[in-house]
Amino acid sequence: MPGLRAPSDYSGEPPRHPCLRINSKEPFNAEPPRSLLISSYLTPADFFYKRNHGPVPIIDNIERYFISISALIEKPRQLWMKDIRILPKYNVAATLQCAGNRRTAMSKNKVVKGVGWGVSAIGNAVWSGAKLADVLELVGIPKLTSITQPGGKHVEFVSIDKCKEENGGPYKVSIPLDQATNPDADVLLAYEMNGEPLNRDHGYPLRVVVPGVIGARSVKWLDSINIIAEESQCVICSLEDVSTIKPGKVKISGYAVAGGGRGIETVDVSVDGGRTWLEASRFQKSGIPYVADDANSDKWAWVLFEITVDILHSTEIIAKAVDSAANVQPQQVEDIWNLRGILNTSWHRVHVQAGHSNM
Amino acid sequence: MPGLRAPSDYSGEPPRHPCLRINSKEPFNAEPPRSLLISSYLTPADFFYKRNHGPVPIIDNIERYFISISALIEKPRQLWMKDIRILPKYNVAATLQCAGNRRTAMSKNKVVKGVGWGVSAIGNAVWSGAKLADVLELVGIPKLTSITQPGGKHVEFVSIDKCKEENGGPYKVSIPLDQATNPDADVLLAYEMNGEPLNRDHGYPLRVVVPGVIGARSVKWLDSINIIAEESQCVICSLEDVSTIKPGKVKISGYAVAGGGRGIETVDVSVDGGRTWLEASRFQKSGIPYVADDANSDKWAWVLFEITVDILHSTEIIAKAVDSAANVQPQQVEDIWNLRGILNTSWHRVHVQAGHSNM
Repeated sequence: MPGLRAPSDYSGEPPRHPCLRINSKEPFNAEPPRSLLISSYLTPADFFYKRNHGPVPIIDNIERYFISISALIEKPRQLWMKDIRILPKYNVAATLQCAGNRRTAMSKNKVVKGVGWGVSAIGNAVWSGAKLADVLELVGIPKLTSITQPGGKHVEFVSIDKCKEENGGPYKVSIPLDQATNPDADVLLAYEMNGEPLNRDHGYPLRVVVPGVIGARSVKWLDSINIIAEESQCVICSLEDVSTIKPGKVKISGYAVAGGGRGIETVDVSVDGGRTWLEASRFQKSGIPYVADDANSDKWAWVLFEITVDILHSTEIIAKAVDSAANVQPQQVEDIWNLRGILNTSWHRVHVQAGHSNM
Repeated sequence: MPGLRAPSDYSGEPPRHPCLRINSKEPFNAEPPRSLLISSYLTPADFFYKRNHGPVPIIDNIERYFISISALIEKPRQLWMKDIRILPKYNVAATLQCAGNRRTAMSKNKVVKGVGWGVSAIGNAVWSGAKLADVLELVGIPKLTSITQPGGKHVEFVSIDKCKEENGGPYKVSIPLDQATNPDADVLLAYEMNGEPLNRDHGYPLRVVVPGVIGARSVKWLDSINIIAEESQCVICSLEDVSTIKPGKVKISGYAVAGGGRGIETVDVSVDGGRTWLEASRFQKSGIPYVADDANSDKWAWVLFEITVDILHSTEIIAKAVDSAANVQPQQVEDIWNLRGILNTSWHRVHVQAGHSNM
């Protein structure tokens, strides 16, 4: 991102207070002595524990810093610091704490993995900034006003840093959309800590503060916010990749499933590499030996689809689904690749070869 | 648990259908061929993908099977199959899908970690059983009726199996309490699949089904349900472990913090190994240089505490906190040990030695 840059090495780290007990130097993880920790109700930034995942990002030009917000269906929206500062400013006292606080005491019992924290991977500060619920409303995502269907969407925060655990990719976590859009949850995009601008170790120029949960969700050096939906999937099962077919009518069938209790609106199939699309029909309602309470509901269930198309030449067949909240799937697996290999929800593609004899 | 037993080896595995494509033999992970997968709207148990984490538990005596439900403050409640069967029975059609479904396609792009699933780590069934919201109500946890404070409590499901990833400990996951207590979320404790009793591979005698999210949360062979609160902590900071003190008046101070926006009700300190307790006072409200919007609110913030006690002999000092929802901390770190070394919320203990000269 112009304006803010993630270095690949640790030559540009900020100065730190000498009192800190260093648990890991690169990335920098440190905590204050326990006696100092309770010397004031608000923990000064200098003494506040640091828990970094890579080198601290470097500001090239703060005037050019912005964050991107994407909600799958729309083009990402860019928000500049002025867009965030113009929203109502809230001051929230919140304690942040590393989930690994007091890990050392746990490892006395039996060895554990992770940075060896003492009892001071915790701090309390007044964080100031815009409420995330206001920011999301600004880009068209309404505030929480009633109990909604759980298990649905999440809000992902992506840092700009190069994170050791992610093989050099950025640090990212997510929280439920219900929490993000609930003003009473006090989730902030914060630009101040204890009345001063954030310092570099604590996320300058902008960080997330999610009160009441482990500190890991309070992403620093914010780069982007993504609204993500779980598990919309659409897979062709009638053909292997690669299949040889006889040119002519070919039946294509498979399953589609949407996460979070959203239904599948349509399944579209393309046999020309995505230039044109045909809507498939459903066939799941026939021959059910045993029915759910509401036989008309496929809220939590998959949809089986089929369509017969003319295929005359070797080609790539693509299937994609749109759920009832109008979410579409990502086109390419490259866009959603992750080390754990989970949630591959990209368009499904199978290649067919048209054979002309001995079929 | 009497009645159901987790074996340490794979000699007692159930028979499986020969059509399954095996991705891992021990623990057993397998999926059907894709063409078979869509032959019916409801996936027969035989063809339904299996994703185990250890050997399949063995039934010794189903009459003696029960689950335990604990909510931190109370003694665990035991529920027998008859207690669950007497509740209203719901039939919910739900697709379960492994988060790793289509992982193989993702690894074509760049190598990923995990079991190499094709496109069939998914299945659709009608699950029958009691709603978790009804089960929790039975043990005194009310149903969700309005928007509640997010970030608070979770419901943890613990299997009886010996799980490879947990170094032989049981498999466990959690979901938010709001989801568990919302009847519309359709979370089930299921004892039937497609109108038949669960088979052993799918969790006999009782499993969780959490519709609309990754299959990993639908714990099989249920052993216990725990209501857990995030991060209640209480730490003594004025004394190191071990400190030498001069016998007489000793000031003990530290911090306490509750998760999920719950306040700290009291901090209690014991200097006789937990036999008697004294209530500490708070001192955080003085000398705040910069205040939050609501200066009286410590909803998301820690509490600093202090108390002066008489200590005449070498002893163990213990501090524990009670939050505003009356949650107390676990006594021993042994009870909450985990491989990642996180969320050590046990009572804090420091040892002091009474020195009698040259202090």
